[in-house]
Amino acid sequence: MRIKKEHTKEIILQTASRLFQRQGYSATGVNQIIEESGTPKGSLYYHFPKGKEEIALEAINLMKQHVLEQTAKDLTSTDNLIQAFQQHVNNIAVFFDSPCSLDGLKIGLLAAETANTHEPLRVACEQTFKEWQDLYAEKLEQNGYETRKARELAVTINALLEGATTLSLTSKNGDTLRLIANQIPALLSHKN
Amino acid sequence: MRIKKEHTKEIILQTASRLFQRQGYSATGVNQIIEESGTPKGSLYYHFPKGKEEIALEAINLMKQHVLEQTAKDLTSTDNLIQAFQQHVNNIAVFFDSPCSLDGLKIGLLAAETANTHEPLRVACEQTFKEWQDLYAEKLEQNGYETRKARELAVTINALLEGATTLSLTSKNGDTLRLIANQIPALLSHKN
Repeated sequence: MRIKKEHTKEIILQTASRLFQRQGYSATGVNQIIEESGTPKGSLYYHFPKGKEEIALEAINLMKQHVLEQTAKDLTSTDNLIQAFQQHVNNIAVFFDSPCSLDGLKIGLLAAETANTHEPLRVACEQTFKEWQDLYAEKLEQNGYETRKARELAVTINALLEGATTLSLTSKNGDTLRLIANQIPALLSHKN
Repeated sequence: MRIKKEHTKEIILQTASRLFQRQGYSATGVNQIIEESGTPKGSLYYHFPKGKEEIALEAINLMKQHVLEQTAKDLTSTDNLIQAFQQHVNNIAVFFDSPCSLDGLKIGLLAAETANTHEPLRVACEQTFKEWQDLYAEKLEQNGYETRKARELAVTINALLEGATTLSLTSKNGDTLRLIANQIPALLSHKN
């Protein structure tokens, strides 16, 4: 029974993420999430008593967890700092070559749509970006970058990836991301 | 009469852009655009016989025109290449310090939402990014950058700005953009 409940929750979150991505947060109603996930209304409100915003918050947190785990894995894949960041970018690029790339939830899309209208979602997106940047900054500091410089570069890499994924979504392939990877050496050329 | 008609069209485009930005493309209906712009239904269909998608296409083109004009102005504001690009980024940053930043249309938001569902909008967004990158690449080539390198850097700067505006929207200030401006010298350090 426990497993089944968890499974239902996961299906609801996946369906909602896909809908938020494909048609935006505002256009997605709870009824559509219920219909497309094939779960009973009671199930949805059992898992998410507060409805759509609660689903979105959990979808953001799930995406955050996934992104942070993958980033940590990429950044420790090699001792060479430049190669580690390039590997990270290239791993994301592969994802965007597939038409399934739109099934995930792009934090930046949700952030840009809800920033002025749904404060809890804005805060959750901001926190996701911050923790992602923290991972980058930590890695850079470990490699001898001065604290302030590490922070600046972390924000820059985050922005670069966020923008490159938008361009990759628009052109429907990961080439922009692969091209970005080539600029990592110049970007990381100064440690202070 | 001519002036009045043009004015109505402009109001419709401004209202639609604001709604697309604040609630997404899918959630915005033609009736809401009519209501919030205070224009008669007949006027809207006189200017945009094909309805919402035609409005969005024209809003994208208007934004493109504005962005290209501003970029060309920024890039010719000084003979110093690095300073010109930094000035360009800082001019965008100022815009994001204001709560009005959400009244404009962010091409990347529309692109990410409609990429898999509205091909004409995806193509228009892709074209906007391309022409924007062309301006950057041209400026870099004029300053002695090798053609392939100029193209790569142009895409990188476009991605960086696109991502930094998303982060700035999320944090409700232009600080990310200002920080990005500091990385321009390293990014442009090699001409081939």
